[in-house]
Parts: sequence; structure tokens; C-alpha cells
Amino acid sequence: MPKESIQVGLIGLGTIGVGVAKILLENKENLARRAQVPVILKAACDLDITTDRGVDFSTVMMTTDATEMLKDSDIDVIIEVIGGVNPARTFITQALKAGKHVITSNKEVIAKHGKEFLEVARENNVNLYYEAAVGGGIPILHGLKNSLSANNIEEVFGIVNGTTNFILTKMTEEGADFETVLKEAQALGYAEADPTADVDGYDVAYKLSILAGLAFNSHFSYEDIHFEGIRQITANDIAMADAMGYVIKLVAIGIAREENSVELRVHPVMIEKKHPLASVNDAFNAVFVSGNYIGDAMFYGPGAGELPTASAVVGDLMDIAMENEMERSHPSMSTDFEEKKVVPIAETTSAYFLNLVVKDEAGVLAAITKICKEYSISICKIDQEYASGGEAGLILVTHKVCEGNMQKALAEIKELTQVLKVNNLIRVGL
Amino acid sequence: MPKESIQVGLIGLGTIGVGVAKILLENKENLARRAQVPVILKAACDLDITTDRGVDFSTVMMTTDATEMLKDSDIDVIIEVIGGVNPARTFITQALKAGKHVITSNKEVIAKHGKEFLEVARENNVNLYYEAAVGGGIPILHGLKNSLSANNIEEVFGIVNGTTNFILTKMTEEGADFETVLKEAQALGYAEADPTADVDGYDVAYKLSILAGLAFNSHFSYEDIHFEGIRQITANDIAMADAMGYVIKLVAIGIAREENSVELRVHPVMIEKKHPLASVNDAFNAVFVSGNYIGDAMFYGPGAGELPTASAVVGDLMDIAMENEMERSHPSMSTDFEEKKVVPIAETTSAYFLNLVVKDEAGVLAAITKICKEYSISICKIDQEYASGGEAGLILVTHKVCEGNMQKALAEIKELTQVLKVNNLIRVGL
Repeated sequence: MPKESIQVGLIGLGTIGVGVAKILLENKENLARRAQVPVILKAACDLDITTDRGVDFSTVMMTTDATEMLKDSDIDVIIEVIGGVNPARTFITQALKAGKHVITSNKEVIAKHGKEFLEVARENNVNLYYEAAVGGGIPILHGLKNSLSANNIEEVFGIVNGTTNFILTKMTEEGADFETVLKEAQALGYAEADPTADVDGYDVAYKLSILAGLAFNSHFSYEDIHFEGIRQITANDIAMADAMGYVIKLVAIGIAREENSVELRVHPVMIEKKHPLASVNDAFNAVFVSGNYIGDAMFYGPGAGELPTASAVVGDLMDIAMENEMERSHPSMSTDFEEKKVVPIAETTSAYFLNLVVKDEAGVLAAITKICKEYSISICKIDQEYASGGEAGLILVTHKVCEGNMQKALAEIKELTQVLKVNNLIRVGL
Repeated sequence: MPKESIQVGLIGLGTIGVGVAKILLENKENLARRAQVPVILKAACDLDITTDRGVDFSTVMMTTDATEMLKDSDIDVIIEVIGGVNPARTFITQALKAGKHVITSNKEVIAKHGKEFLEVARENNVNLYYEAAVGGGIPILHGLKNSLSANNIEEVFGIVNGTTNFILTKMTEEGADFETVLKEAQALGYAEADPTADVDGYDVAYKLSILAGLAFNSHFSYEDIHFEGIRQITANDIAMADAMGYVIKLVAIGIAREENSVELRVHPVMIEKKHPLASVNDAFNAVFVSGNYIGDAMFYGPGAGELPTASAVVGDLMDIAMENEMERSHPSMSTDFEEKKVVPIAETTSAYFLNLVVKDEAGVLAAITKICKEYSISICKIDQEYASGGEAGLILVTHKVCEGNMQKALAEIKELTQVLKVNNLIRVGL
């Protein structure tokens, strides 16, 4: 027998939690009609349940004690939107053990403990949903799990952090420096007071581990992902990229390789302007997927925000409600993962843009190109940007070469007496 | 008890049918692992079963008689990919009545008889799937039905015809005329020998009726949709659009209006270059959706082709297989549709670009602007493009005005003795 209603407990009344409550309370009739069963927000929990959050919680049981909610046998689904590892990990585990489905928007806890959760879920005959953990409102995980399931996914590229995309867009539009735009983003609420998780790439690495797990039917620790942030990108890099027909984006990259291995990396990339990801601007996110049958597809939308993220959480809830209607008897989620190895970053290949300051004298190019030759680095372009006061700006663009060789070559180039400074090394092309 | 295998019968061995067979036969192990149940192509049917299609059908029962397959009680799912209304309609109805789920890529039959099929499906406790009918491989229907189901959809805009998008892209890139590019598209297999269904907008109208039905939870006859094609678009229109910062695309437009009514229309639109749909080129498709919670999202991918479309068909089949695992007991598909009215095209509003040839003499503008004033048409730009030999090219761009008024004004403008020719009237902006 399908249940006569779906009762929901919500843990966390921050931005996303309030968005979820708004949708569940304000759109109740439509949700019930679409799910063919009433979906009821029975209880909500936060350490602070007195602040007015602009939502009428009068029909909702409010508590500061999550365990109370986890013990309530009427509650079918727990929505966890507090973020961070603790106590989210404990709540999720307890909820699954209590036979409740769990929906979370928490990328960090899924990236770090997702595998463990899925095992507990399967043992307890319930499901774990986390669409909102990657790409905010964009239904990319659902797309990978369901609609694209006929395909073997070959590549997945994503702009999945709204903060850094906002910063890079503003730097591009205004020709401004990173620090200036970061302050602007903080003032607008697009960046945290401590922006590390966003601008240094942690958030993207968490999301890539989740995306790649689904795309390649495996589990990847975010610690195996090489990740870089955007602090080192300058207005000058962006201007030079523009002149060459590129824009700079922070991209999560997953590529299937031979023999059950995958390339997973997060770093800024110069993307050709005509690539669909190049025009994803501001706080928008997009994930570009290549499958062996579908070819190229892209999912685009708001990567964050109260209501977009809540929309994805409630989308997961609607899935549960529709499955209830279908008298789901055991989890639909496969735990039949394949063992796949992450290729060490040194063994990956990219084209590179190298921006140097050198002495303006004869023999510099000879010294640099000699090192490149030793490491099999094939150069497609060398350009002297300026020369003044005995210094010259030098741009070097390579063909696709081995990352390990590039790094070794760069270390030797840095040691050359004629090289005054390495401004930046940025990967080129997707 | 879930079934121990999902047995499939395939009707139609054209491009898409062969693609479906390829995926089912070549990717069998992966599909079985993901669906947690073997998915078996048991039988295939076509009038011609002797031609070599590059697929090894040795494990498949081949027949020229679809009714044989429809009577086979071992077959759980019928895939119909023959296209057109007859005999597809008969086969779909018979399959549903025989208690088989049906998957189709056939937009015409769904646009014309979808409502009737859904009723038969519900009576017979089975489901009807048609992801591949709109946007080829792009999982847009799944997105609307599931992931975005928390939202009330406010707008849906789509580039959903690969042929016309290919033609408009080539016209834009090459500055070529419609007829020239149409011939090129026909030579490349992007357009049919009789291109009417594509270039005159029928195909897009079918798809809009399907998209809008899901987006607005209703049923719309494609006959209630005002649709126009792209034959009248000239290289000159495209060049002028470009100069003003626009590209011309054939767009399916659905907009929710007050009091259970919706605006549904298909016509060329000048889209601002920065809009995400503006950079959807060649045979790619994209659907842009605005929901009250998610805000703006876009789904992008290949709109046609053997394997992309087959990928969507097999995605539907994977849904069925996963639901089997969940011991689905009755259809998940809501037939609780709302009655919604299509707003007559004369009552919609748009901004317009009007391209006229007039006599190069005093008083022309006074005559035209007087007519505009009578019909409350507010003009935002008038530009004389050229003047030679007593003729002048005149461009007029309006603010958002009522379509009915615009058409009446245009009829009067045409009658002016100073107006030699109306080159084009194109809507501006999304």
C-alpha cells in the first residue's frame, strides 16, 4: 500500500532550509496534485527557532533537537541542509538507519562520506538523494542517473561554483583585479567572508567527486582530485586570453581513460569563446557532458541561491513521493560501483599558456626552447608582449603536452638567469 | 515480484530504430548492470527486414508484421519509431491495450493523439514515454516532469528543430540566402527533399504542443498554436539583426498567462546575442525554462541524429526497467490535467522589426507614424537604411505592442501609396 501522505522533517533553517519550507508550505496544493499524494512539512529543526524567517511555520512542529525528529516514526523523509561534515554526517546516518529517505544539498558531506551513506541506505532499504549538492537548481545528477543512462559517459566538464564564476565574469567585464572583485562579491553576498572553500577550489573538488562518481559509476575521494583555485588569475591573463579568443573559467574536468581510469582535475582553463561553457556567466553554473551515444549535451542554470537550490531539494522529494505512489519496495539506487583509478595529474595532458617576464636580451628564447625540447614540449606560439627597461613580457602557448613534463620544464625555466618572473601557467582548451 | 528481464519489441528500422537496436545490442551488459535487470531486444519489425543495416540482428526475432509482436505476451515494452500518424497510432493503441508500456520518438502522433494515448495507458495500467519526441537526445521532458516539478513553469522557449537552426546558422555565417542554404542542407541530409514540415514550422508546433503540455500540466492541440516558418527570412534581415546585436532563430514560445491561459507561438525571433539561446548553433537544440523557484535553466544538446535520439529512447527504457525493479504497481503518469486556454495570437504582445521599401520623398514617415499612433504602436527606432533611385529602405523597431494592432497597422501601411514593399516583419526579443 502506498502511504497516504509523505511526511517530511527539515534539519537546518539557513538560506536553503527556508527556501525548502517556503516551497513546501506555499505550493502545497500543486505539489500534492503532481505527486498524487500530500507532501507535508511536519517538523523543522534549527538551533535558532525564534528568529522570524518570513515563513509561517504555524503548521510545523519546531524543535532545536534533531534526534527528536529522527525518532518520529511518522516522518518518512529527512531533508538535511545544514552543510558541513558535523553534525550532518551523524544526522544523515541516523535518519537512514531509522528507515527514512534522506535528501541533502550538502556537497561536502556527500563528497567525504557518500559511499558510507549509500551502504547504510541500502542496508536499511531507503534512498539518499543529493541533486542540490551539485549545480544548485540544475537537474544534472538526475540527468546522469536516468536520462543519460543509456550512454557511457566519456567526458564531463562543469562550471559548478557560482562565486568564482561571478568573480571571473566581473574581472572579464571590468578588467578589474581579483582582490577588487572579491571584495565586491563579498559585499554582494556572492562570496563568504572567508572565501577559501570557493576561490581555492575545494567546493569544486567536492562537486567533481560527486559528478564523476555518477558519470563514471564509481566512487572518488575528493582528495584524489588535483585542484587549483583562481587567486593567481590576473586581469592581464584575462585580457591576453581575450585577445587570443578565449575566456578563463574555473572548470571541473572528468575524462574517462583506458583501463578503468579517469582524469579528474579542477583548475582555471582558457576556453574558446565559441564553446557553450564560455558564455556561462555571473553566478550561473553549467555542466557539459559527452556520452558515446548522445554526443554533447549541456545543462545550464542557477548554481546557488535560496529558491533554485530548494527547487532541486523539493524535486528530489517529488521523486520520493512519486515512487511511493509506485509502491517502491527497495532502493532504486545501484551500489554496484566499479573500481576506477584517478590518473595522477602528472600523467594528464593539456595545452598550456605560459606568461613570463624575461631579460630583454639575446639568447633568452634559445634557452627556453632548449628546455622545452628536452621535455618534448611542442610550442605552437611565442609572442613578445612588451619590452621596456631591459625587461620583456613573453607569452608561450604549447600544443597538448604531458603535465609532468610541463612542470619539470617550468621548474628549469624558472631557474634560468634570464627569466625574472613566471607570471602564470594556465591550461588551454577543453 | 519484479520481472526477471525486460523484453522489448521495436517497430521501425529507420535511422532511430537502427540506433536503438545498436545501443540495446552493443551496450547490453552496461544497461543490465545499471537497470539491475537484463533488457533484451526480443523482436524487431519493419516492412523491409532484409537490407543489411550494419547491426547484427541474429539474436532478434525479425518480422514484417507488427501485430505478431503486439500479441506476444512476453514483450513488456513496445518502441515505436516509424514516425507519422498512421499506422503508428494503431500500433501504439494496440500495444497499450495489450498491457505493454510504449516508448515513442514520434512527435506528430503524440502532438495529435497524446491525450487519447494517455487515457488508454491509464486504463491499461501502463505508461507512455516520449522523451525523444522533443529535443532529440536532450532530457528536457524528463526534466520538466521530475526535477523541475517543484516549480510552476512560467515560460518555456525552445530551439527544437535542427534543420531550421542549421539553415539559419549557415545563413548567418555565410551571408547566404535561404534557398541556397536549403539546398546545402538537403545535400548534407539535414533537410528532407520536401522540407515543408521543418521549414514551415509544423515540426516545431508539434513539439511545442508536447513541451507546453508538460510545462503547464495541460493538453494543447497543435492546431491552436500560431506557427510560422523561416522561408521569408533573408540574408539582409540577418545582417540587419546582427548590426543591432541580435541573431534570428526559429523559436517555440510558451508563456503562462493569468486565469489559466497560455501563449503558444512558433516564429522567427531576433534574440539578443547575450541570451543563452542565441549561441545555440547548427543542428543543436536547446530549451530554456523559467520556473517560479529555479529561475532560468537551459537544456542543450543534439536535436536529432541516429544515436542521440536513440539515447533518449533507451533512457526511457531504462526508466521502465528501474521502475520494474521497484515493483511499480500502477502508472506514475498523472492524467489530472488542467483546462488551459491558448491566447489568440492577436492578443499577444511582442516588439517588432519592420523592414519596408518606401518612396524616397517627404511625408512618408508622417504617414506611417500616424497609422502607428492610431493603433497605439510605440516606436523605439526608425532608420533609413539606404536611398537610391527614388527608393528608400526603412527600418522600424517598435516597443512591445499588441500583435493584433501591429497586424492591422501593417495592413494599412501596406496600402499607403508611398510604401512600395513590406520586406519583412520579425518579432524582437524573448
